[in-house]
Amino acid sequence: MLLYRLATDGGYAVVSDDQPARRLQSNPWATSLDRWSLGEPVEIDHLLPPVEPSKIVGIGRNYVAHAEELGNEMPKEPLIFLKAPSSLLAPGAPILLPPESHRVELEGEIALVIGARLHRAGRDECRAAILGVTAANDVTARDLQRSDKTFARGKSFDTFCPVGPALRLGSDLDDLSVETRLDGQVVQRGQVREMAWKPLDLVEYVCRHMTLEPGDLLLTGTPAGVTPLRPGQTVSVEIAGVGTLTNPIAAWEDPT
Amino acid sequence: MLLYRLATDGGYAVVSDDQPARRLQSNPWATSLDRWSLGEPVEIDHLLPPVEPSKIVGIGRNYVAHAEELGNEMPKEPLIFLKAPSSLLAPGAPILLPPESHRVELEGEIALVIGARLHRAGRDECRAAILGVTAANDVTARDLQRSDKTFARGKSFDTFCPVGPALRLGSDLDDLSVETRLDGQVVQRGQVREMAWKPLDLVEYVCRHMTLEPGDLLLTGTPAGVTPLRPGQTVSVEIAGVGTLTNPIAAWEDPT
Repeated sequence: MLLYRLATDGGYAVVSDDQPARRLQSNPWATSLDRWSLGEPVEIDHLLPPVEPSKIVGIGRNYVAHAEELGNEMPKEPLIFLKAPSSLLAPGAPILLPPESHRVELEGEIALVIGARLHRAGRDECRAAILGVTAANDVTARDLQRSDKTFARGKSFDTFCPVGPALRLGSDLDDLSVETRLDGQVVQRGQVREMAWKPLDLVEYVCRHMTLEPGDLLLTGTPAGVTPLRPGQTVSVEIAGVGTLTNPIAAWEDPT
Repeated sequence: MLLYRLATDGGYAVVSDDQPARRLQSNPWATSLDRWSLGEPVEIDHLLPPVEPSKIVGIGRNYVAHAEELGNEMPKEPLIFLKAPSSLLAPGAPILLPPESHRVELEGEIALVIGARLHRAGRDECRAAILGVTAANDVTARDLQRSDKTFARGKSFDTFCPVGPALRLGSDLDDLSVETRLDGQVVQRGQVREMAWKPLDLVEYVCRHMTLEPGDLLLTGTPAGVTPLRPGQTVSVEIAGVGTLTNPIAAWEDPT
């Protein structure tokens, strides 16, 4: 089952078993899955990110090869960072390169979406609370990330968190893979079995340190192959069986 | 004018010129101040933080003496970090010391509350968009902040962001001072004139890097005197003319 969020009115739609999309009449962040009720057929056209996170939690260096390419040691525990929710970007919308950075890079990632509140929860509760999986691009101003250490500025510019297009429910969390393409060329390939910490490990770890709320987004880290972006390029992040998130790159321009 | 948020129903109340508190019938994050309408008198009793931030932005090392006490150099630009909104805590509620840290410290701060969306805004627009000032405690697990560098884990435990009790509108942003007391003893004193970057500088800087939304909270940094916390103590952060934020300290206990 795939969940989409419609740009027309911010509502949600569900696609199940090759049936036409139907409007979701329930609030997916306040209603448990077994009580979702569906309404009339609806067009899946202009989309928003299929999440409404109160926070976006990222994980640094979860793939050994990516830590090595940036000259970093692997941490002993997952390295948590936060991305501002104002950085969220819809599928198809342009990633804008800000004038404050000279090196903005793509980071294709498998993203987990939380469906129920989690506070110091055990493994089974965490598993039950993961609503599903989507694709994300943890766009990063590498120069500012290096100079600031906190990651906050380098990863939180507006448009630096494309997410979507679909949220897939019921995926096997241990058998996911991500592929990132720049202008059609594959630049990153990763899979859960290469992660230092698997999806459930990460959810369990993060919710020991902060309560996770319904709609929160957990980015599971990026594989090797992070690549600088230039205006005019197009970047795609594909999670097999979930969907492909595609965004063009544009120079930032003062709209005033 | 002081703005409070009521724990009874999440509504807001306004106290103006020694008049009794009256319920605010407008949404303060969606209605401009000159259109606020007031309703019946109401008790200012149990309170929530007087903000509903989509993000909490903190500033590291904004007072020279505090950078020195931690052995840090002053950064060339404001050092931005993010605190998870799930760390918000009401006035009077206990700060819980988590088992993951051996050194949790207080950080009394002057907090700015944003009242209108700001994106790469100039100085005058920033000034007009600051709704007011409140007190905050940027509680920090110092050991985890040092080990992680991103600050995210060390500053985002639940209960690590007490805010309130009141949001004061119309303060002179260049003439604010903060005093932190632990069990009645003054441990921190700071004022805007000692800051490397003043409140308006910070808002202007932050909104160049991420859009600020109504209700967002900007913590302006802590003065020297950060002090470890122990269960049974009480910490108070006072902003002169704004109010005093008081929270007891308790050991974390598994509620299950």
